[in-house]
Amino acid sequence: MSLIGDFGVDPMTPEQFDAEAALFGPLTDSVRTLMEATLMSEAEADDVARARALVDEAAALLNTRRGGIALGTRWGTDGIRRSWGNAVMGLRNPVAPPLEFTHDDDGPSWAEAELGGLYEGPPGLVHGGVVALLLDQALGSAAFYAGSPGMTGTLTVRYRQGTKLGPVRVEAALDRVEGVKSFVVGTVITPDGVCAEAEGIFILPREVRHLAGELAQSFHPGEG
Amino acid sequence: MSLIGDFGVDPMTPEQFDAEAALFGPLTDSVRTLMEATLMSEAEADDVARARALVDEAAALLNTRRGGIALGTRWGTDGIRRSWGNAVMGLRNPVAPPLEFTHDDDGPSWAEAELGGLYEGPPGLVHGGVVALLLDQALGSAAFYAGSPGMTGTLTVRYRQGTKLGPVRVEAALDRVEGVKSFVVGTVITPDGVCAEAEGIFILPREVRHLAGELAQSFHPGEG
Repeated sequence: MSLIGDFGVDPMTPEQFDAEAALFGPLTDSVRTLMEATLMSEAEADDVARARALVDEAAALLNTRRGGIALGTRWGTDGIRRSWGNAVMGLRNPVAPPLEFTHDDDGPSWAEAELGGLYEGPPGLVHGGVVALLLDQALGSAAFYAGSPGMTGTLTVRYRQGTKLGPVRVEAALDRVEGVKSFVVGTVITPDGVCAEAEGIFILPREVRHLAGELAQSFHPGEG
Repeated sequence: MSLIGDFGVDPMTPEQFDAEAALFGPLTDSVRTLMEATLMSEAEADDVARARALVDEAAALLNTRRGGIALGTRWGTDGIRRSWGNAVMGLRNPVAPPLEFTHDDDGPSWAEAELGGLYEGPPGLVHGGVVALLLDQALGSAAFYAGSPGMTGTLTVRYRQGTKLGPVRVEAALDRVEGVKSFVVGTVITPDGVCAEAEGIFILPREVRHLAGELAQSFHPGEG
């Protein structure tokens, strides 16, 4: 989750964001497909060598002009954040599955994804740390959406059973607020049932606490 | 961490593993470089379109022959596991930084990595869930190395300060064993000091408990 906006940078217009998404979204999806192929390939050595040369050529083309070391969260002229660099949700981050959260007023925030071999820990199972990663994002997003944004202070995950690779649903909801602390709970669910439960305590850093109102208004579907 | 070996598959010889590492290791590194470029590129639309076509061509070459949906953990004729599909350590998994753990007999297990924008949460900071992901692996590996392997039962992470993108060190050590439960502690450290602390309880699944001895002997540097 992104809380501290990159306030030193000129905000982009919605049209500029749309154009960037149209250009880099499909590229990122292609890279995700390549990553799975890299993991699972049993191709001949000649084909692997040719593939690597193509990958290097593609990276060089993309690097003809590039930004800093991280994409961060960017604010639009519409006051909305786009967290396209986020490791769980980021439209431009190939590490992200990506998860897109839906926030209903009368139920938990939730997202669904198909997790393949790139997220494996024990054979055939989602890595326990990836389960924690998804839950941290879900809990943080739910706190954000409920108007109590914060950074993770404490995260506790209880694993009830292995999370099989395949379709995974993540849910989270704000439980209560105590002073500057938001208590959030969530679960990871597969067709086998509940695989993990989490509780998190989220705290807004002192230096951005005066921005809480602005942050709560900066919400974008799939972005917080 | 991988506990349940893919026992149905013929083990590979060390020479076969070496040949595979020499072929697919550099490819995976190239793909990691491409992923960063994909995240950070500000290239012209024509270059992005050409890059995407090259990426698709590379994926097609790699998919001319491929395995199932996940790489899993494979055992060698030497009795050693290779977890090349692991999301944190995997030599063939582009999502993995990758971390390679060193296990000293007279100190904690540890690994160091340079974490860039692909692992970002809040702007300029490592995603809190990625911190949990690295700790889960570190704690699991330390339990494994200490002869008390298990799958994560409970993981608690306390965040002391934001973890800046850049050099990160992860440490973990077995604290104590109570029956089938291994209690493991660990930290994430940057040049700013300790950023997060974790405690995990690891439990070996009943169905593989009789293999505990074999598992403890299957250790490979950077693989457990």
